[in-house]
Amino acid sequence: MAETNGHSGETIPLGLYLWTRIRQIGVSTILGVPGDFNLEILDYIYQVPDLTFLGNSNELNAAYSADGYARVREGAPGVFITTHGVGEMSAINGVLGSLSESIPVIHVVGQTSKVLQEGRLMIHHSIGNSEGGGKYGPDHQMYAKMSKSARVAEASLWEVEKAPGEIDRVIRECVIQRAPVYIFMPLDLSMEEVPRSLLDTPIDLSLPIDTKVQTKAVDAIISALTEAKNPALFVDGLVQRHGAREECKALAKALNITTYTANMGKGVIDETEPYFAGMYGGVISDPELLEAFEKSDCVLLLGNIAADTNSGGLTRKFEKDEGIQVNANNVVVKGQKYEPTFIKPILAELKSRLADHKVAQSSPPQALPKKLSVDHKAKHLTQSWIWSAMMPFFQPNDVIVAETGTTSFGIIYQKLPPNVKLLAQTYYGSIGWATPATLGAELALEQEARESGKPRGRTVLITGDGSMQLTMQEIGTMLTARTKPIIIILNNAGYTIERVIHGARQKYNDINAANYAAMLHFFCHPSPEKSYHKATTKEEFKEIFGDERYKDPQHLMVIEIVLDKFDVPWRLTKQISIRGERYMEELVREGFIGEGRVGVGG
Amino acid sequence: MAETNGHSGETIPLGLYLWTRIRQIGVSTILGVPGDFNLEILDYIYQVPDLTFLGNSNELNAAYSADGYARVREGAPGVFITTHGVGEMSAINGVLGSLSESIPVIHVVGQTSKVLQEGRLMIHHSIGNSEGGGKYGPDHQMYAKMSKSARVAEASLWEVEKAPGEIDRVIRECVIQRAPVYIFMPLDLSMEEVPRSLLDTPIDLSLPIDTKVQTKAVDAIISALTEAKNPALFVDGLVQRHGAREECKALAKALNITTYTANMGKGVIDETEPYFAGMYGGVISDPELLEAFEKSDCVLLLGNIAADTNSGGLTRKFEKDEGIQVNANNVVVKGQKYEPTFIKPILAELKSRLADHKVAQSSPPQALPKKLSVDHKAKHLTQSWIWSAMMPFFQPNDVIVAETGTTSFGIIYQKLPPNVKLLAQTYYGSIGWATPATLGAELALEQEARESGKPRGRTVLITGDGSMQLTMQEIGTMLTARTKPIIIILNNAGYTIERVIHGARQKYNDINAANYAAMLHFFCHPSPEKSYHKATTKEEFKEIFGDERYKDPQHLMVIEIVLDKFDVPWRLTKQISIRGERYMEELVREGFIGEGRVGVGG
Repeated sequence: MAETNGHSGETIPLGLYLWTRIRQIGVSTILGVPGDFNLEILDYIYQVPDLTFLGNSNELNAAYSADGYARVREGAPGVFITTHGVGEMSAINGVLGSLSESIPVIHVVGQTSKVLQEGRLMIHHSIGNSEGGGKYGPDHQMYAKMSKSARVAEASLWEVEKAPGEIDRVIRECVIQRAPVYIFMPLDLSMEEVPRSLLDTPIDLSLPIDTKVQTKAVDAIISALTEAKNPALFVDGLVQRHGAREECKALAKALNITTYTANMGKGVIDETEPYFAGMYGGVISDPELLEAFEKSDCVLLLGNIAADTNSGGLTRKFEKDEGIQVNANNVVVKGQKYEPTFIKPILAELKSRLADHKVAQSSPPQALPKKLSVDHKAKHLTQSWIWSAMMPFFQPNDVIVAETGTTSFGIIYQKLPPNVKLLAQTYYGSIGWATPATLGAELALEQEARESGKPRGRTVLITGDGSMQLTMQEIGTMLTARTKPIIIILNNAGYTIERVIHGARQKYNDINAANYAAMLHFFCHPSPEKSYHKATTKEEFKEIFGDERYKDPQHLMVIEIVLDKFDVPWRLTKQISIRGERYMEELVREGFIGEGRVGVGG
Repeated sequence: MAETNGHSGETIPLGLYLWTRIRQIGVSTILGVPGDFNLEILDYIYQVPDLTFLGNSNELNAAYSADGYARVREGAPGVFITTHGVGEMSAINGVLGSLSESIPVIHVVGQTSKVLQEGRLMIHHSIGNSEGGGKYGPDHQMYAKMSKSARVAEASLWEVEKAPGEIDRVIRECVIQRAPVYIFMPLDLSMEEVPRSLLDTPIDLSLPIDTKVQTKAVDAIISALTEAKNPALFVDGLVQRHGAREECKALAKALNITTYTANMGKGVIDETEPYFAGMYGGVISDPELLEAFEKSDCVLLLGNIAADTNSGGLTRKFEKDEGIQVNANNVVVKGQKYEPTFIKPILAELKSRLADHKVAQSSPPQALPKKLSVDHKAKHLTQSWIWSAMMPFFQPNDVIVAETGTTSFGIIYQKLPPNVKLLAQTYYGSIGWATPATLGAELALEQEARESGKPRGRTVLITGDGSMQLTMQEIGTMLTARTKPIIIILNNAGYTIERVIHGARQKYNDINAANYAAMLHFFCHPSPEKSYHKATTKEEFKEIFGDERYKDPQHLMVIEIVLDKFDVPWRLTKQISIRGERYMEELVREGFIGEGRVGVGG
């Protein structure tokens, strides 16, 4: 090990080692919630230059925020810290979401001290009743065992000598595998000393590329592409998850063939390019796109995520025997598998070698004229109108955070400006995610602007009143941190997406009332009156979305959009209808499908 | 099986069977959050007379609410329902709290349908990426496996024939063991039919008492008690958890010996009785009680919970060789164990047989005059003043929900009026619990008043601004349900209990600002101005707590109490100081201990 600083004998506490390592890989904010068993660990954060701690309002929100941060950073993980038991278990659903969606997150857990663990003492936050401890006392590792499936690697720190190596190992796994890892740190261990010189060697974050396999895979891809008469490119979610955004864009430009995206792949390809066709998602695609996609004789599918919510309810058609799949860790060309490979270097090599080969050109189909929606003359706001009306509001470099619900079915079929990141938890679909994720996204944008000196885009959250109530307190943290997101709330009096699925008029799909006009007062916004606007009509909507203050907001801003509770994007009803006859009958009975409904069209 | 209704051939859907069974054991409200995989299951709730569904604002809050409901009912469990993955895992920390604290809760999970599970399809809320499903697709049972340690029994329903028996079995386990159970219900299974006649036989909830063992145990207890020269009674938490409140009160009256409680045992014994001494909690006890307790030659300890937070940091002294312990499932007399036994019938038999025996009488020690606190002349509010000043406010039959924090160290040493239930999550100590638990407690009080026709007490939540922010949205649900709790918020600008433990002035112990004057406006309270009051001085405090409107509130009411962020009950600093020298030094350095501090005394 190189010891260039001449401090070979100098030591630092393990806690300081941990946070320094995390700063070294590009993280600037540690999220989380303090608790009895992590306070001393938190102290060390303040000793690391350019690293800060931001306390979330609860642990689930901390996990969601870390997820949002990582989605924007595309490389540096989100990091958050909780306390033994009560904290770590409150956060677990957020971590599972990151695992489901391939988001790198480091969850640091401050555990009870080693002596308390060894004595199995009946310390608060534990489970088990004995005489205060002993053989039949609580197993303090119980929670760590329960959360095992929520991660791809863990460092269960116990001996200080092994701890730095373990920390380095799991940080590497987190970044390489793009998935959550845990670091369990007994409170007292964080104060033990390790050699400072260990920090001089950066953690190796390079991909373990097998160049032979990679070259063979690229050979096969090129061969299949050059043979195809009508090739197409299809971009899915794992491209951006694995940091291959730029490589993918360059490849698409070089290929210049008809290019589609999945919901989860949106925001990578410049959608103003002539080769960009639009979204393909099986039965919920525009008919001309559906036809064109399924006519291609060779689809190059990048970063496949075949979840129901990303494929029109598993109706996406991809012929394995004809197509090419570049997955996270392998390539499949006409049924032949090459592994191990990695998306990012594969796309780079493919692009660089394409110049010597000829791929048949293809162009997107002519867009059919859109039918006017039955409610196009309405003065009030409708799902058939708001999404396209909202698009001029967005600017290049914005980050849009779209909550699960009618939002995710509404916005995804709109064409985005270049370099806009669209964040959505499409596969895991845990409502409530988007609000804290917005905090994380804002922190990431701020950091990138600060570190690069370049101007930043805005973070725009679009959520529903139903989802909002699960995690609303994170607006308080946004204000504490002086972040400036724009929060658009679709107020349609309940869980409208659930109404479409079942029980349209059942009381269980109603939610608690909320007076959003008072929300910013409650959370101590410095300028609550001027930072909240409400739109009930198209006129009001146009006025608000045209307001100059939203172009470069100086504070957190809120726009409330009032919609009918039975008004939904048509693609949502379409996706539900394929669940089966029972669902179809219900959609017709409740009026979600049929000529008279406001939700149809658009 | 008796088929008294003549409908031997009639069938009902399994979902209806489930909720009918739950109504039969005395539950009137199902809590939870709707989701794609539980909507049809929710429908059946409305078919059961006198059973309703109340949607919480998120799943963790649902679990906490169910816990609060069960704590007041003392027999009927709390019941809540979530959806596959995202819902069930969000709730898990709440269920773990119930397990830690011996609270019976039934967590119903609406799982993906059987066909989706069998195909391992990539349905949203799942984890795993394949070609949409198949052999390598997501294991939908993954979450059920992860939560195994959070329950004492589970019904993993799959075959409809076995389902009613499984439901009955776990409901019984929940009630008998006083602990959480899970019922996993694939969505489609809930619609399959089962014989209606199965409902005619009530679920057997009787304790499997071994009368021989019980009689031997009572013999031994009586023998030890009659031999003792200075016996004492000590009431701990499992007495009320196991529904033995009335038996314990009767026993205490019959014994008429010096009686102590633990924090967690508070609210069982009538504290106005002459034999009631007060709280014993090791080093944080009043000195005269500490001395008297430790002089007793035979303590009858009922329902022991030996957790650090229930025993002055494990400093409670109980001599096993001299004492008697009546535990949840055994009795130990001078080291000799008798099992299996159950607290409730043991206490009943012991009381009934005492008449024939003579137990030496003992009386509580004379209370020493309390030293005046150093800040007793302050005009502003102090921890040394508010707790005793608050006591006249409480009325018999009230339920007090005390959040973890300075509240739990402040209120517990005050003498309660008779028949007041004090709810606190003393052992698990997950902050945020108390607000949703208050909702559950209110629902339980309302139900009991409705069903008994007797007047009800009030639910009074006492929480801190730090704990409040974790779960604040449940105030919205309280208003939706038109409940009328009184919410007392100690606003001391952060996590004051954590400041005492470590990092008194560190930024991580600060929280987000909240303007409580606007809170009720935000949550759409019908009369927000009149229902919120704020006290900064003792004068204001007296005026508010004397206000007639709080005697029988017609709405949810809020009282904000402003306290200094470094002001704490002395017992809290005492308990922290025994953690070790490092903590002691810090307490002195930060001024928490020492003559000059406002927190000292009281």
